[in-house]
Amino acid sequence: MKRFVDLADLTRDEVLSLLELARRLERQPEPHALAGKLLGLVFFNPSLRTLASFQAAMARLGGHSLVINPGQGSWQMESRAGVTMDGAAAEHVREGIPVLASYCDALGIRVFAEGRDLDGDLADSVFNAMAALTDKPLVNLESAINHPCQALADWKTLDDMAVPRAARFVLSWAYHPRPLPLAVPAAVLHMAVQRGMEVIVLRPEGFALPAPLMERARRAAALSGGSVRETNDRAEALAGADVLYVKEWGATERYGDAALDAQLRRKLTGWCVRNDWFAGAPDCRVMHCLPVRRNCAIADEVLDSARSVVQREAYNRLPVQMAVLHRLLRS
Amino acid sequence: MKRFVDLADLTRDEVLSLLELARRLERQPEPHALAGKLLGLVFFNPSLRTLASFQAAMARLGGHSLVINPGQGSWQMESRAGVTMDGAAAEHVREGIPVLASYCDALGIRVFAEGRDLDGDLADSVFNAMAALTDKPLVNLESAINHPCQALADWKTLDDMAVPRAARFVLSWAYHPRPLPLAVPAAVLHMAVQRGMEVIVLRPEGFALPAPLMERARRAAALSGGSVRETNDRAEALAGADVLYVKEWGATERYGDAALDAQLRRKLTGWCVRNDWFAGAPDCRVMHCLPVRRNCAIADEVLDSARSVVQREAYNRLPVQMAVLHRLLRS
Amino acid sequence: MKRFVDLADLTRDEVLSLLELARRLERQPEPHALAGKLLGLVFFNPSLRTLASFQAAMARLGGHSLVINPGQGSWQMESRAGVTMDGAAAEHVREGIPVLASYCDALGIRVFAEGRDLDGDLADSVFNAMAALTDKPLVNLESAINHPCQALADWKTLDDMAVPRAARFVLSWAYHPRPLPLAVPAAVLHMAVQRGMEVIVLRPEGFALPAPLMERARRAAALSGGSVRETNDRAEALAGADVLYVKEWGATERYGDAALDAQLRRKLTGWCVRNDWFAGAPDCRVMHCLPVRRNCAIADEVLDSARSVVQREAYNRLPVQMAVLHRLLRS
Repeated sequence: MKRFVDLADLTRDEVLSLLELARRLERQPEPHALAGKLLGLVFFNPSLRTLASFQAAMARLGGHSLVINPGQGSWQMESRAGVTMDGAAAEHVREGIPVLASYCDALGIRVFAEGRDLDGDLADSVFNAMAALTDKPLVNLESAINHPCQALADWKTLDDMAVPRAARFVLSWAYHPRPLPLAVPAAVLHMAVQRGMEVIVLRPEGFALPAPLMERARRAAALSGGSVRETNDRAEALAGADVLYVKEWGATERYGDAALDAQLRRKLTGWCVRNDWFAGAPDCRVMHCLPVRRNCAIADEVLDSARSVVQREAYNRLPVQMAVLHRLLRS
Repeated sequence: MKRFVDLADLTRDEVLSLLELARRLERQPEPHALAGKLLGLVFFNPSLRTLASFQAAMARLGGHSLVINPGQGSWQMESRAGVTMDGAAAEHVREGIPVLASYCDALGIRVFAEGRDLDGDLADSVFNAMAALTDKPLVNLESAINHPCQALADWKTLDDMAVPRAARFVLSWAYHPRPLPLAVPAAVLHMAVQRGMEVIVLRPEGFALPAPLMERARRAAALSGGSVRETNDRAEALAGADVLYVKEWGATERYGDAALDAQLRRKLTGWCVRNDWFAGAPDCRVMHCLPVRRNCAIADEVLDSARSVVQREAYNRLPVQMAVLHRLLRS
Repeated sequence: MKRFVDLADLTRDEVLSLLELARRLERQPEPHALAGKLLGLVFFNPSLRTLASFQAAMARLGGHSLVINPGQGSWQMESRAGVTMDGAAAEHVREGIPVLASYCDALGIRVFAEGRDLDGDLADSVFNAMAALTDKPLVNLESAINHPCQALADWKTLDDMAVPRAARFVLSWAYHPRPLPLAVPAAVLHMAVQRGMEVIVLRPEGFALPAPLMERARRAAALSGGSVRETNDRAEALAGADVLYVKEWGATERYGDAALDAQLRRKLTGWCVRNDWFAGAPDCRVMHCLPVRRNCAIADEVLDSARSVVQREAYNRLPVQMAVLHRLLRS
């Protein structure tokens, strides 16, 4: 494995093999596996889990890491091609990324969607332009439309809970004061269908996932034996659900239209997950990638209940990323 | 030892044993003692000594560390219970702290007092709520009312200078443009009485240390053979003093009343320690936890004189914290 | 070698020896050479290459590093002597630098020119005042008037390209929206003459390098067999040039006069290096220390051509700094 930028690049068997390696590294630590290896982590956006767990993963495998935050201690970076750089950015990614790559054995890059151009975000054009600047092993730390490390950790969490392959997995929109990117819903949607689950996307009108994402999911479902559909009927979706994966995202009806998004979401504060959502699914687990705004997206009563496995998901970032780094840098 | 959050949790003998370990690690480095161990450092507030010396301590013991600054590169974190998180904070400590703990072998947390609610600050309610979220080894990197690492380093500094157990230790208020928290005066007061010293708190009217702190100090003095009293008479306090420990703190008369604090401190710029303070104590040493505002709290002529041991105090953070980490993670 | 603060402190043979060590460490890594050693990196200004490459250098030699950014996570630091610190800075470098030095085996400090007082900047007074506060091994990470790590990396780059000792090296001013410090032009000027090259400083009127820098360069040229002169005639300078080193800097006619600088540079946007600059020098290489503002200082067509060796320069920071750290901490 040379890069880890999209779980969809891997076959189902390759994912299962990565997860097996993650479990092995949990049971049998390899504290010297990456001795002398250096991972550079470039964060264009904030992070807690990714920032900490990748440093932890390198440390636990005997390697090193360094963190660059463009615009905070390091130069603000331009990513557009052909621009005359007379603004705030002092450095272009065309210089910055290859330079960092030349110091390190692998790079990780986090760059969120700008949320204005749907086609560009679906094509992950900013991340991919940076990825093309280096041939070193590369990890996607969350891009405009992807978050493969989160998706892999979630797959392991489902396995840890012994959730059956064909179980009902509801990916539900939830309220947030601002429109968030599609990266996690896109990555988790694909992960769930690739695992072979019965996937239902539950969302209010105006927040349907873009057609290309749904189409890709349907193709993956056909391969894996799973299924995928969308609805806005919460009771129907949740009846008998095994897993509710909660996520906030921006309006897709007119992607990037901030006024429409604000108008739509103003009426949707009721999309905060509460205990009464589970009347028809008493054993349903609740997942969320974190960070989560308590009592906006999910109520305290749910997050603090046995139903919530958000801590397990976050913890699982560590072993699955150790497996990814092991594959990239040693295997 | 499972946690290091308050020097008052330790008996005098336990403190002496930690200091003995610190001195042993100075003489006989153990560069592999914490191989494979990872310390997570969470700074809700700025730091120089704590930030650098804990990273240095882990490195010198062969371990690793990682730093999280909520709001700077990482998500701003909410600490209040039950709140609807529709403001600036994207993450709650109820998620953030256990997640970080799950990646690390030990955590350190720094969170300063808000300075509004005296009872809450004296109870260290914000720090303690976070501490309750993990059962991993934990270090207090300075909380609303405590700074045990500073106090332990200061105790070692007194030992390094061979200051007698029963020596006169004056903890004096000093001028600062803004009201600072009570963490260091509270921690140092307790340290000095626990060591068995004759402790005098010298402060202007309006800045008396809160009664619960003084009462706790009196109880500790009874056990250690030391003593403690307060005064606003500088000449009397300093006559024959062996040590002057200088610290800035906010008005306590009406805790959290910014207007009253500003009105009181406006007249107190004369509380800047100068050479003429030592007319009655020619051999008196000057201590300060740093950072210090030169010529506000202490004049250049004092800081740059042989009387000052502030550098020794700061250096001692390293060996005492190595001892703390050794106890938490190895012993 | 006890400090690495100015390439001019080293004889030509000492530089050649450092470069030989850099090449040896490229061929024969020494992953344990600095085991147990700790480098403290203090950045008063932003950085990408220096920040990443020094952490990488310590990691690749088996040592550790820690980063302090005063004002970002750490206290804002005052550097003026004798001041009453009632402003934004909570800490003085007189405390901060020795404290950090006491935790580490070596320190690196970056502090840019303020650009107001030419004599003070030429004397590197702020950096030198900090350097005087510690006797630990010290590295200049770029000061008001120097950047020895960049200059050494550039020397290695010239060697890597087999540029003859007596080749024509044109150091050209280029456009930037704001006045930048003289550190890199000063350091590179001296490096090139010390290497023995035919050095031409090409700059518009108002941007002549200060006389003391040129005089020092002439003395170095006399020793090395090189030469140095200034011109504003681009065609003449570039005719037959082997290397064009591009750099932006502020107006020197009335140093620190922002209005005059703005007025002068407004007419100089044509000083953006394009392909047509090389009509008389078809094989001329282009160097730049980075970060570079594309299409302000250098056009895409040049940066993306085979002529550009900016990536090689940036990469070379790693091996030359490994050599510097090896000399400071091991040899």
